Amino acid sequence: MPRLPEPLERLVAAFNRLPGVGPKTAQRYAYHVLRNHPAEAEQFARALSNLHGNMHRCGKCHLDSERDPCAYCTDEKRDVSVLCIVATSRDLHAIEGSRSYKGRYHVLGGHLDALEGITPERLNVATLLHRIDTEPITEIILAFNPDIPGEATSMYLARTLGPTGLKITALARGLQTGADLEYVDPLTLGDALTGRREVQ
Amino acid sequence: MPRLPEPLERLVAAFNRLPGVGPKTAQRYAYHVLRNHPAEAEQFARALSNLHGNMHRCGKCHLDSERDPCAYCTDEKRDVSVLCIVATSRDLHAIEGSRSYKGRYHVLGGHLDALEGITPERLNVATLLHRIDTEPITEIILAFNPDIPGEATSMYLARTLGPTGLKITALARGLQTGADLEYVDPLTLGDALTGRREVQ
Repeated sequence: MPRLPEPLERLVAAFNRLPGVGPKTAQRYAYHVLRNHPAEAEQFARALSNLHGNMHRCGKCHLDSERDPCAYCTDEKRDVSVLCIVATSRDLHAIEGSRSYKGRYHVLGGHLDALEGITPERLNVATLLHRIDTEPITEIILAFNPDIPGEATSMYLARTLGPTGLKITALARGLQTGADLEYVDPLTLGDALTGRREVQ
Repeated sequence: MPRLPEPLERLVAAFNRLPGVGPKTAQRYAYHVLRNHPAEAEQFARALSNLHGNMHRCGKCHLDSERDPCAYCTDEKRDVSVLCIVATSRDLHAIEGSRSYKGRYHVLGGHLDALEGITPERLNVATLLHRIDTEPITEIILAFNPDIPGEATSMYLARTLGPTGLKITALARGLQTGADLEYVDPLTLGDALTGRREVQ
């Protein structure tokens, strides 16, 4: 490709650094911005400039938040006896979206991944153990992705936390709402059978 | 979804306005920016802020360019007798990328589209006719997408420019380089047969 005009090229390069955005998509985004009102580009630019200065990491649960400590750690209405461990801030927001959980959280900062060199020392495990020692926690919920890194992380934590004598639970596996039995993968169907429950 | 922290939410909203970017992808982009160095976000913001002020529309060919007139219209080495008509600035850059064309360009500003209300009056047709009257053009190349709006635009221009007596050509249709005959669609195969040429 010949070089685009420099101001466009610079914006294309910035979009191109986003995950999963190739040069063609980056061009599409940049031209879209060019077509729109300059005020919109200015607003976009302000959102980028103001991001890092206004975002903090909660010192207690490690959530990306506007405040430290975050709103979840300071909310007196939340149940302090249950601690849900998630890999990322985004997973925490997903769980909040279900409106099914009213305990506290701990953001681990990722999944264990030997190939990527992500060892327990690189995750927020030490602070987790400290919280278990100092907070009135009775149950730990392991809320990780149902995939290999998620499973590895769950197994590691279950083993590490075993000696604490706390109740340790994990998210249920089974059919997704709206699933069609005919198309459900065999592993999920196996999980749904193993985890079957009485209906009355 | 519960609301994310306000500074993140504002950036998600900005990404969400890009074409084809839904809320989940916008979140992914925003968290990616948050994970990276603030200097990178600042560079991104500057690219956005500086875009509109530094981009112009070439008064002659309507290309989005840093300069008016643009580098193509002022390049004395380009052949002024051939004028390639494209729908958008991006199509012009694609043609330049082929390194097979050394004439001048005219950017129409889109395709004719009756359903979208894009009539010839909304495209850069008047300036095209003026150029044909005042420049030493002998051939017009219609370089539009091989789809319905592209065909409609080609047909309209071929009819409108017919009385000028200029040579009017269109991009060749046929097999794509690397295509597999077995999987080529019948219309393309038909075009390739109709446009067949002697090989010696």
